[in-house]
Amino acid sequence: MNSTKTINLQSRPSGQPKLADFDFSTSEVPELGQGELLLGTKYVSVDPYLRGRMSDAPSYVPPFELNKPNKSGIVAEVLESKNDAFSTGDFVVGELDWKEKQVVKGAGLMKVDPNQAALSAYLGILGMTGLTAYHGMMEIGKPKAEETLVVSGAAGAVGSVVGQIGKILGLHVVGIAGTDEKLEMLKSEFGFDEGINYKTTKNMTEAIAKACPNGVDIYFDNVGGEISDAVLFNINKFSRTINCGAISVYNNTEAPKSISVQPFLVKKSSLMQGFIVTDYANKNKEAIQQLSAWLKQEKLHYTETIKEGFDQIPQAFLDLFEGKNKGKMIVKL
Amino acid sequence: MNSTKTINLQSRPSGQPKLADFDFSTSEVPELGQGELLLGTKYVSVDPYLRGRMSDAPSYVPPFELNKPNKSGIVAEVLESKNDAFSTGDFVVGELDWKEKQVVKGAGLMKVDPNQAALSAYLGILGMTGLTAYHGMMEIGKPKAEETLVVSGAAGAVGSVVGQIGKILGLHVVGIAGTDEKLEMLKSEFGFDEGINYKTTKNMTEAIAKACPNGVDIYFDNVGGEISDAVLFNINKFSRTINCGAISVYNNTEAPKSISVQPFLVKKSSLMQGFIVTDYANKNKEAIQQLSAWLKQEKLHYTETIKEGFDQIPQAFLDLFEGKNKGKMIVKL
Repeated sequence: MNSTKTINLQSRPSGQPKLADFDFSTSEVPELGQGELLLGTKYVSVDPYLRGRMSDAPSYVPPFELNKPNKSGIVAEVLESKNDAFSTGDFVVGELDWKEKQVVKGAGLMKVDPNQAALSAYLGILGMTGLTAYHGMMEIGKPKAEETLVVSGAAGAVGSVVGQIGKILGLHVVGIAGTDEKLEMLKSEFGFDEGINYKTTKNMTEAIAKACPNGVDIYFDNVGGEISDAVLFNINKFSRTINCGAISVYNNTEAPKSISVQPFLVKKSSLMQGFIVTDYANKNKEAIQQLSAWLKQEKLHYTETIKEGFDQIPQAFLDLFEGKNKGKMIVKL
Repeated sequence: MNSTKTINLQSRPSGQPKLADFDFSTSEVPELGQGELLLGTKYVSVDPYLRGRMSDAPSYVPPFELNKPNKSGIVAEVLESKNDAFSTGDFVVGELDWKEKQVVKGAGLMKVDPNQAALSAYLGILGMTGLTAYHGMMEIGKPKAEETLVVSGAAGAVGSVVGQIGKILGLHVVGIAGTDEKLEMLKSEFGFDEGINYKTTKNMTEAIAKACPNGVDIYFDNVGGEISDAVLFNINKFSRTINCGAISVYNNTEAPKSISVQPFLVKKSSLMQGFIVTDYANKNKEAIQQLSAWLKQEKLHYTETIKEGFDQIPQAFLDLFEGKNKGKMIVKL
């Protein structure tokens, strides 16, 4: 019989997660029922947001269950199929259990093409990271050539894709990040026009004004807080702010205060719109087509750190919090 | 020869405007050139926002010039025309000089139909007031039956129309205002479902939660500040906030602080959009058709205070600041 290893969530991490929060078990893979698939895991994504799902604080997604398999984005190969929608040899991506092999019904899985891009890309640039950047820019930002785009958290996985999309579409792109090294990378590797170090800049409002001589048309906001206040003073009429995250204020215990946005929005006929990537799931297919085309044309670049072996998944996850990855962290089986 | 009286802006008001800020002159009406019209003023709108244009502080509209005619929304009759687009006997509305008669080129004027509604309505419910409410609701609010609408500044000219549009479209409508008398009027005259007195309510967040058992889908915001903070805690996924005004913070000298909106927008995939009525001028025609139809069907109600005589215009304007009007204040010639 077929057997598989599984990684379960043993305890909810308190503070920094540790190896002991996970345990390994081995079990037999069940027989396929009608409509089911047997999947063999190929690439596993480990991401900081998983930390949130390991806790049981209220959120917009349910927490992982204790003593059940942990999950994340996974690219798998169809090893056997009793489902008409999938054939043996297909590759799929979706949120799946941390198992070497698993039997599923196929709901929520998307087929991916290994000839269109490297399979691991479907966990990053062609996965949640790339889709978040693309949908936010296209559905909310609605960029027009020559406009000015400011990205906060610009050196993050999403931010660096946002800036590249801006450059591909002919915008003036300004990134905000916390070290000169990151800013240098944004300019040399990803083509950003200007960078602002929010940790060493005294007057952010003036720095943004200087980097954006024509004002700010699109602000892709990953951080909120004082950085976003400074952007507000520089927005143009009909500007769009994409509220992707507000990491600077997530850990506050009371609702934090910022500059009142309302007078700015009224005066500038300006828009702010929050979203999560699943809001636009119906447009994932066209998004992936466009992102893959840009990848093939070498207009879009990404970096990833790949670890090998199923047993390495928990350590790869822990390494994220030590900053041991460069770009997307992935485990290959 | 034809002569006309004109009311000029004599001095920029300091604090409360006074009669001495205006002066009257008499001049001859010039001969019509090719493409020009002679207009006879019928109804003059006086509005609080004119106060802003009498000062020369920076704004999104240029200030009125000193020793030049003051202006406002006016309905006039075409007395003579050398412009193919207009005929003698037509009625038009537009921003015009405070003159009994004037010669213009016709740019920016819209013909209005006295059989569709009372001419004075084109200065209020079918003018800027009604269009602001309509465009804000339709273009940004995008209301769906059964949704919940909260309106701040609900007893104002715009707010009362917003709530009525909400009721016509089948929404649950909650108004926020500053006196019980106003709230009573919103319910009995304009059909609002619930009213909240922000001056006497201790916990606005809880009061809004109670009045909106299904949460808030659309927030038409005329005020900003703490009232809007309280609404934020009650917004639903995919909610829309229409930022029409932020009167509660306009007079602050420094940029005021409020609850950070960004985490709420991210968590709820929620939108905030500022606007001014002219952003949607290309849709005024269909808006006026819809609003007139609702007026004729007696689904939409409005109140106005009408003063008579050209010389009364400055006093009617001053009366606004004493609250001597009920609904829209208009001077009839």
